[in-house]
Amino acid sequence: MSARKPAAKKHRLRLGLPKGSLQATTARLFELAGYNLRFPERSYYPEIDDPEVECILIRAQEMARYVEQGVLDAGITGIDWVRENRAKVRELADLAAPWPSYRTVRWLLAVKEGSSFKSVRDLRGKRIATEVVGITKAYLRKHGVKAEVEFSYGATEVKPPILADAIVDVSETGSSIRANRLRVLDIVLESTPRFIANKQSAADPWKQRKLERMLLMLNGAIAAAGRVGLMMNVPKRALPRVLEVLPALGTPTISALADDQWIALNTVVAEKVVRELLPTLVERGARGIVEYPLSKIVG
Amino acid sequence: MSARKPAAKKHRLRLGLPKGSLQATTARLFELAGYNLRFPERSYYPEIDDPEVECILIRAQEMARYVEQGVLDAGITGIDWVRENRAKVRELADLAAPWPSYRTVRWLLAVKEGSSFKSVRDLRGKRIATEVVGITKAYLRKHGVKAEVEFSYGATEVKPPILADAIVDVSETGSSIRANRLRVLDIVLESTPRFIANKQSAADPWKQRKLERMLLMLNGAIAAAGRVGLMMNVPKRALPRVLEVLPALGTPTISALADDQWIALNTVVAEKVVRELLPTLVERGARGIVEYPLSKIVG
Amino acid sequence: MSARKPAAKKHRLRLGLPKGSLQATTARLFELAGYNLRFPERSYYPEIDDPEVECILIRAQEMARYVEQGVLDAGITGIDWVRENRAKVRELADLAAPWPSYRTVRWLLAVKEGSSFKSVRDLRGKRIATEVVGITKAYLRKHGVKAEVEFSYGATEVKPPILADAIVDVSETGSSIRANRLRVLDIVLESTPRFIANKQSAADPWKQRKLERMLLMLNGAIAAAGRVGLMMNVPKRALPRVLEVLPALGTPTISALADDQWIALNTVVAEKVVRELLPTLVERGARGIVEYPLSKIVG
Amino acid sequence: MSARKPAAKKHRLRLGLPKGSLQATTARLFELAGYNLRFPERSYYPEIDDPEVECILIRAQEMARYVEQGVLDAGITGIDWVRENRAKVRELADLAAPWPSYRTVRWLLAVKEGSSFKSVRDLRGKRIATEVVGITKAYLRKHGVKAEVEFSYGATEVKPPILADAIVDVSETGSSIRANRLRVLDIVLESTPRFIANKQSAADPWKQRKLERMLLMLNGAIAAAGRVGLMMNVPKRALPRVLEVLPALGTPTISALADDQWIALNTVVAEKVVRELLPTLVERGARGIVEYPLSKIVG
Amino acid sequence: MSARKPAAKKHRLRLGLPKGSLQATTARLFELAGYNLRFPERSYYPEIDDPEVECILIRAQEMARYVEQGVLDAGITGIDWVRENRAKVRELADLAAPWPSYRTVRWLLAVKEGSSFKSVRDLRGKRIATEVVGITKAYLRKHGVKAEVEFSYGATEVKPPILADAIVDVSETGSSIRANRLRVLDIVLESTPRFIANKQSAADPWKQRKLERMLLMLNGAIAAAGRVGLMMNVPKRALPRVLEVLPALGTPTISALADDQWIALNTVVAEKVVRELLPTLVERGARGIVEYPLSKIVG
Amino acid sequence: MSARKPAAKKHRLRLGLPKGSLQATTARLFELAGYNLRFPERSYYPEIDDPEVECILIRAQEMARYVEQGVLDAGITGIDWVRENRAKVRELADLAAPWPSYRTVRWLLAVKEGSSFKSVRDLRGKRIATEVVGITKAYLRKHGVKAEVEFSYGATEVKPPILADAIVDVSETGSSIRANRLRVLDIVLESTPRFIANKQSAADPWKQRKLERMLLMLNGAIAAAGRVGLMMNVPKRALPRVLEVLPALGTPTISALADDQWIALNTVVAEKVVRELLPTLVERGARGIVEYPLSKIVG
Repeated sequence: MSARKPAAKKHRLRLGLPKGSLQATTARLFELAGYNLRFPERSYYPEIDDPEVECILIRAQEMARYVEQGVLDAGITGIDWVRENRAKVRELADLAAPWPSYRTVRWLLAVKEGSSFKSVRDLRGKRIATEVVGITKAYLRKHGVKAEVEFSYGATEVKPPILADAIVDVSETGSSIRANRLRVLDIVLESTPRFIANKQSAADPWKQRKLERMLLMLNGAIAAAGRVGLMMNVPKRALPRVLEVLPALGTPTISALADDQWIALNTVVAEKVVRELLPTLVERGARGIVEYPLSKIVG
Repeated sequence: MSARKPAAKKHRLRLGLPKGSLQATTARLFELAGYNLRFPERSYYPEIDDPEVECILIRAQEMARYVEQGVLDAGITGIDWVRENRAKVRELADLAAPWPSYRTVRWLLAVKEGSSFKSVRDLRGKRIATEVVGITKAYLRKHGVKAEVEFSYGATEVKPPILADAIVDVSETGSSIRANRLRVLDIVLESTPRFIANKQSAADPWKQRKLERMLLMLNGAIAAAGRVGLMMNVPKRALPRVLEVLPALGTPTISALADDQWIALNTVVAEKVVRELLPTLVERGARGIVEYPLSKIVG
Repeated sequence: MSARKPAAKKHRLRLGLPKGSLQATTARLFELAGYNLRFPERSYYPEIDDPEVECILIRAQEMARYVEQGVLDAGITGIDWVRENRAKVRELADLAAPWPSYRTVRWLLAVKEGSSFKSVRDLRGKRIATEVVGITKAYLRKHGVKAEVEFSYGATEVKPPILADAIVDVSETGSSIRANRLRVLDIVLESTPRFIANKQSAADPWKQRKLERMLLMLNGAIAAAGRVGLMMNVPKRALPRVLEVLPALGTPTISALADDQWIALNTVVAEKVVRELLPTLVERGARGIVEYPLSKIVG
Repeated sequence: MSARKPAAKKHRLRLGLPKGSLQATTARLFELAGYNLRFPERSYYPEIDDPEVECILIRAQEMARYVEQGVLDAGITGIDWVRENRAKVRELADLAAPWPSYRTVRWLLAVKEGSSFKSVRDLRGKRIATEVVGITKAYLRKHGVKAEVEFSYGATEVKPPILADAIVDVSETGSSIRANRLRVLDIVLESTPRFIANKQSAADPWKQRKLERMLLMLNGAIAAAGRVGLMMNVPKRALPRVLEVLPALGTPTISALADDQWIALNTVVAEKVVRELLPTLVERGARGIVEYPLSKIVG
Repeated sequence: MSARKPAAKKHRLRLGLPKGSLQATTARLFELAGYNLRFPERSYYPEIDDPEVECILIRAQEMARYVEQGVLDAGITGIDWVRENRAKVRELADLAAPWPSYRTVRWLLAVKEGSSFKSVRDLRGKRIATEVVGITKAYLRKHGVKAEVEFSYGATEVKPPILADAIVDVSETGSSIRANRLRVLDIVLESTPRFIANKQSAADPWKQRKLERMLLMLNGAIAAAGRVGLMMNVPKRALPRVLEVLPALGTPTISALADDQWIALNTVVAEKVVRELLPTLVERGARGIVEYPLSKIVG
Repeated sequence: MSARKPAAKKHRLRLGLPKGSLQATTARLFELAGYNLRFPERSYYPEIDDPEVECILIRAQEMARYVEQGVLDAGITGIDWVRENRAKVRELADLAAPWPSYRTVRWLLAVKEGSSFKSVRDLRGKRIATEVVGITKAYLRKHGVKAEVEFSYGATEVKPPILADAIVDVSETGSSIRANRLRVLDIVLESTPRFIANKQSAADPWKQRKLERMLLMLNGAIAAAGRVGLMMNVPKRALPRVLEVLPALGTPTISALADDQWIALNTVVAEKVVRELLPTLVERGARGIVEYPLSKIVG
């Protein structure tokens, strides 16, 4: 590590990237934001093409702890693990995005189908297996229920009814709940990925500006996700009726055409409205509608 | 399945997606058209992000049967399997597209290289192996030939000359014909993927409108396939010569520039003409030519 | 091969594509340039959707030899192998591009870490293992050093110090140098992929024009690599300050908007400057900045 | 195929090997029996190291049909497909063996869990999907039930209750029944792999002897499957008590030792009894018990 | 799970098999011992061909806990995890065997190469990351050292020096220690796989006998691992010189031959001595030496 | 490498193992011979469980060169590469064995099917591509033919007729000759794997003995390949007729049984004769015939 020492004299941001389920999408997010990230095999130090940033791969579960301790200036992890660790960190952005494992996940209290438990109150004195012991205990306290919470090393969803009476387990799509014939009693916590910073780092002027510019790029990429560009030609008379149905995401750019009965319109819309929007635009007179992909939206 | 019953009260379209060779491209087509399709492993119920649509994976061979019976409102399958099943369904669109397995396929009557059969008439009394018994019998009837048609469970192309005298087999590229040293006697049927609907469903006002809008999106994505956008700056004087060589796919959008000696031109062309078009455009004075990808073309 | 004979009467370009490390990127380059290349398994004749071109897969090491002999009209290979074969060919373009194995590679003279060799002059009488015997001998001659050069069939980098005293080996990233604890004494040659042609073919009018148009497309795709399009709206007053920070890659296209206080600006920039450019553009008044992907840049 | 013609003059046995689920185990069976089988990729003619035998890969479903027709002299397939095809063939051996897919399989009549059907009699007028239409119709006739039997192209187990009211599907372990929440109403047929021969071939003296010797080797390998050799030293006085517990699979070989108070005993037992036998043999005085693997048992 | 209830009335042994690194070798051990184990995909209930045994896949880390609670009658796990859980269980056998992950593993106290820590005493007040918090705390107590022990979710070996000052991590071959440039301060615990039982289960007569017989088979298979059988013919006069060099693993079996100048000798030796033994046996007169594989050694 | 220096004081054998096509079978041969070889990923120094042997992975093409230079004491490579390098080495054993790539291979002179070349004499002045330039030139000299021999970097078999007029290429099964429609003019060289030694090493007493014992084990494993053990009981009267048909591989071991009308017979035969032998033994009175696998045969 001695080679890194001189670098400490320069301004340097130490950034934690989450290993595991969030890793692939985090890599994609940085790539979309204009960074070049390489994950050398068997190394825990991803290479980034910004000499002022040093990346470290850390389990999402442990990220907040190390950001709080100042080992890392900033990092990406779920709010669930921030809570589980009761970590005192500054939350800079919610990075929820329409990509695998970057959507909202739910920690669910579940029991076996066919069991007699109807609510958390029925679990008094029972055994609950979970990866999030802290969150679960806080939840039980809030409901005034005393139960035995056991740390689960994994495969939590197969434990009821033999190895546990209930579980608190995470689910993005609910498929493992169904596959294991479990019944959900309650939603314990909803979580999304967050960009968190150490409190002192966030107060340092150089690091603050560095973090802001990085977030501008990350947010620009997330803003483009799920959005598309639309170009179309509109008869001048039809313009009001067309503008009326365009979502107010941003002011559309309207420019003149050689044929002065028509104008050109260029705008950005959510990809998910396109399905309803295109037929309507055609009805209202737009022609030559072209949808094209976007990389970033800023400003 | 009881959980689905209440849903029947709402408007709901039950759509069959073809499992097997058409599946991957069908999934891509829906994605390009703006739908989010997920295929949970081991499940036959793909998830789609339209609460009014319920998808079921069905073999292409069986699709038309279930659409005819009304089990499905609509589905995608080849016209070959519609014919083979003699299914009475409404054909709403031909989805032929420049993608794997969405191109035209041919059902060929073939015999072994070196055999003495020259035409279908030589097959009188012979054994013909095929997956499409119905189509083959109809074809033979049309030609007034009586022969024994045997259902083949697969690997039809390796059967001549020992296991069959001739076969009727499908071919997208002809490579299996060559690989097995077969000789083609005739084209029995040309087939492309079709969007088919149950006749009653197609007559139901809500379903009819739902199907129309879905088809507008599917067709918009197919139209964009194999096309690209071109932006360029053109000296005003050069405009006629440039327009002369632009394919007439749609009227190009022409807009003014700050420098009034130049105009900006934006248009859509087939990807395959770009190789010949770009050098010509440069010769005729266009500058700053940029090619960019498209997602959909409508209107 | 008799089936190919009649084709010889038509104009036909015989093009060598490099098998091995350059192959995947070469395939991608042609696809980006608008060609459809298929590599049938176990065949050495890739199929291209241009009936006037016939492709053959050839090892990069042997490419220049066959281009020189006239077996091929043109081909793609590294300048290293042109030199190694002392091939007399016409070099039409340097295809260096920001893609794997299309970047500059270096042939390095290296010895084991900790050995006493300090420069090429210390290698007098020693054994040097290399895949490029010709280049290495020429290099030694230039430095007036006599040494034994042994052809290495591979795994050259593991030979020092037992199997060789020094090596001349190729490196794209330097990782194998580090992994094998070697020390670099000198750079023997820097190499990039080149488009080479047979001298007679390059003088033939039909082939010359064919090669020029093909290169225009290949270069158009390479130019688009690492570049993106930017569209934005700019207040008229802010235009000078915005133009000031835009890189001079090409003149931006400026067009009028309906609201005459604003103008629309469309330009192409290097992807790697976007991270610094976007925040600055926002500061200087640009709004609705949209980044979009490009396929080709020509003219 | 002309190259094969001269071979017809020599004695030659044409043998069908089952493609699909039985293939891997059939290959292993022949290898254990002393044959060397090679399956060239994409070929339907496995190579065997017996010049008097010619192998062809055939779907198990179609095997009996081709053996009956005399296209094949002999073949291996399940008795289920013999019945489904109502094929008139000579059954030479039951090859049931303790290997994957060579165990007994069951064709089951099944309905969805929770449905009201209790027995085959409740299926009057209902739709039954199956790959074995013939077997199913025969079964229904036997029970005096009229129902609609539909040929299923696959994934039969997911069809109830939407796509079929009941199914007749095959099961080796019952796991797909459980996975799809089906309830079994009846066992329609139990099946094992059989060695079948064409009736005329079985009457031909040369082919009869060829088939007998081949079956001797196949049976020798099956006999060794699930059996092991046991060697042990036994005090002479203890011999009766040891012999008493040895299974009567074959007479054990008893030989003298240098120490005439002991004798050596060598025998073959079923692998599955070893678990109970070894502790008992130790109790009764046997020492130095060694279990070793066997390849064949004959005579 | 109600279907399992009646089974509880019969004698039944509930056996935990370790999921994870020990799983593959455990499966092989049971197979060698004469059991047939199947691991249905996605199921946690391996199927075993002994109706009196019910298997459950459990993480090695959790095994001892469930054996102690009586959820399982017995199980296989490392002594490390028994200690970590302070589980009160009966240890019936040490299953150390010359197979992957069944050899002795070591939990090592390690720091980064180049750090100043020389012994555990230097770690006072430092952070130690480990998967075995209990074992580590006990070890520190024994040495009178107070330090902060943090549970590590994995990848412990990459944590020093940034994420931890020292680690206690497991190593079978030491390769991860070297790969991560760690220095070992001490061996905290040596561990091998053990067969453990619940104390009450071990006292139950039926279960006790069941466990004893199962262990006899497991130990018989382990004894045969790394041993081979040797058969040879020896001239009577040479016998003493041959016996002299045979390892004393067991008395060799000596039997008469038809030719009374020779005797036959059959014995078991360690596979690793064969390399030295065979040339010596030939020198001393043995002939026709045949080495053959063994499956079990008992008695 | 300094760590290896002290080892040089001890007796040590430096052994080259062939990287590439021979590697997998060489590894298997050493394992069968009783050695434990490990190939650490990315390392060129396989680990062997004999502290007196040091292994190095070397390309078969370069092996003889380094054995001749004394860098290696011994190594395994084909006699073809010994000849190609004109290496002066001692050949200790021919390791031909019935395993992939250890069988005899042929270097063939071949031309395209349909070409007019009939013998080597027709190749005067033509281009011959080959990986074995030295062998090919020697062969041409012997036949008094002058031709241009070009080194081929690979894929030699696809070069005729465009890239070469003829080739000298290696073939184990002849399948690549057929697949590329080549016609064989002559066999240039037949080659098998050899165990070669440096001349000085072979004269060193310690190394000589070490090599002899290693070869005894390698040859013992090769001898067992393709052979099996047979045990059977024979009525005393039938013994002559049984012995008559037993192949004379070695004297069978005949021992007395308790029942003095029978004797026990134990012998080793080639696996490939078993198919014909077993039925005959049964006919001649043998009973309880058991075939078992062998690991080594020595003496």
